[in-house]
Amino acid sequence: MQKGKKNSIHFELLILGSSSAIPSDARFPSSQVLRIGEELFLIDCGEASQNRLWSHRVRWSKIGWILISHLHGDHVYGLPGLITSFCHLQRTQPLIITGPMGIRDFLENILRHSQVHLTFDIEYLELDQKVQVIYKDDWRKITAFPLDHRIPTMGYLFEAEKKIRRLDLEKVQKTDIPLDHYQKVVKGESVQDSTGRIYEPDELSFIEIFKRSYAYCSDTRYKESLVSVLKNVDVLYHETTYLHELLDKAIQTGHTTAKQAAEFAKLIQAGQLITGHYSSRYKILTPILEECQSIFPNTVLGYEGLKLEILPRGNEIG
Amino acid sequence: MQKGKKNSIHFELLILGSSSAIPSDARFPSSQVLRIGEELFLIDCGEASQNRLWSHRVRWSKIGWILISHLHGDHVYGLPGLITSFCHLQRTQPLIITGPMGIRDFLENILRHSQVHLTFDIEYLELDQKVQVIYKDDWRKITAFPLDHRIPTMGYLFEAEKKIRRLDLEKVQKTDIPLDHYQKVVKGESVQDSTGRIYEPDELSFIEIFKRSYAYCSDTRYKESLVSVLKNVDVLYHETTYLHELLDKAIQTGHTTAKQAAEFAKLIQAGQLITGHYSSRYKILTPILEECQSIFPNTVLGYEGLKLEILPRGNEIG
Repeated sequence: MQKGKKNSIHFELLILGSSSAIPSDARFPSSQVLRIGEELFLIDCGEASQNRLWSHRVRWSKIGWILISHLHGDHVYGLPGLITSFCHLQRTQPLIITGPMGIRDFLENILRHSQVHLTFDIEYLELDQKVQVIYKDDWRKITAFPLDHRIPTMGYLFEAEKKIRRLDLEKVQKTDIPLDHYQKVVKGESVQDSTGRIYEPDELSFIEIFKRSYAYCSDTRYKESLVSVLKNVDVLYHETTYLHELLDKAIQTGHTTAKQAAEFAKLIQAGQLITGHYSSRYKILTPILEECQSIFPNTVLGYEGLKLEILPRGNEIG
Repeated sequence: MQKGKKNSIHFELLILGSSSAIPSDARFPSSQVLRIGEELFLIDCGEASQNRLWSHRVRWSKIGWILISHLHGDHVYGLPGLITSFCHLQRTQPLIITGPMGIRDFLENILRHSQVHLTFDIEYLELDQKVQVIYKDDWRKITAFPLDHRIPTMGYLFEAEKKIRRLDLEKVQKTDIPLDHYQKVVKGESVQDSTGRIYEPDELSFIEIFKRSYAYCSDTRYKESLVSVLKNVDVLYHETTYLHELLDKAIQTGHTTAKQAAEFAKLIQAGQLITGHYSSRYKILTPILEECQSIFPNTVLGYEGLKLEILPRGNEIG
């Protein structure tokens, strides 16, 4: 994978847990941290996610939003402990918690029994099972969409688009504009050289479009209808609980096989596929990766500690 | 510490977690496994206890009883995940869950939201804040007693007493009783030698009393009145959240200092003291151990993975 041009906007993923329900020594249940700009989004929060955050030195205070896919334990049983620890650490900034209907009662009943005195406000966003934009600002958008699991389950699509003015070094070096004026140029201001000639920002800089998208799909059966929502996504995380030889089991338990996930990535013309949510029967994950790569070459095995810059489509291998 | 005479009855403790609320890399919240005979009792179940059980290769299926001290997260947030994993593993044998009032609603509401279909029966035993015998069979007894924390909290005292008939090898070797009759002797049956002489069991064996006790006290302020319940306990686990220089904080938050725990162990004339539930401020625990040992020499530092045979009083150091 070729790295894109270095820029100052972060759009990065850190995987905290990659296993399905039953834990093992080395794997932890689902949880991911997505950094967009300076804000951290925690996606799912399986048991011991707070320990993972600690181990990976994630700055807890930067987590402003927790998005839960569904209320199965391996995606949400780490939430009460994390909220409690936030309180122990005297967090004051508000937190948004998004998830399917019931997430509020789930959490509030636990915190009531434990007599946790919240030190910050929680805003709950409980979602119906439909495609919906749940957040939008001048450069970021989050869309929730229903998956096909055994209980109400949501996937999340994160999109960012921003114009960045970049200095055209070739042009700038032909002038005698002082160094401390360069910042003005990239802010879109006009500047003067020593002769008094005024340069408009477009004469010394150009506009680059920063555009990235990331989709999180766990847990779900193969769901072709999502193509309209996820078409052309840069990076797709899609559960690959089983190898395709266990297709019947996948359908029965509301999961996807590695082959199906790869076919879905191909269908939506994703840039990259990240696997995860492995059944505990798989001690070695290479067969899952290989099954995906035979259909969708730019597949990356998701695992505990994987840190990945989300790059635009076109940065694929080869 | 001198090891007692080898015998076939197990009374062993394994510490899974020794930290108070905020986790760190190496420490986990409160949880212990007590083995009495062939049965395992899980005492408290902080977040990720199931991972600890897994790491220490504890046979999950042997856990017949889970005893929760109180509903603060660092003592109970691992329970829903463990119950869910029991179901994934198709457990069928029933489970008893004991704790303060509310434990049932706490757990049932979570399992309802997660739509967990139990594969086994759970019997709940919700306790009032009073001293009470909660279990008794022909050789084991469990007593619950109220502690003094910020929310309703119970401690637990485990006692075992059993007569074991042991072969008197010196006497047996003077006879020509065949080897395969030795088992009959220890079962209390009479046996014959080659001449037809009958030996009553007391002629070839003697009775040994196996007697052990273990008490679990977490979390609590120093509570002198417990002397009547815990007098002469063999091994006392008592929380030592803070050093004594933070006595005010201990009282305010409903905890005990290392010095106080040692004074309590001395007061009840315990055989041994195990420390635990350390505040996350203590990266190095030696000062806690030293503070205890200056008052109560037979103190052992509790830590993740400590496995300890519960021995009768009189096996103290020195």
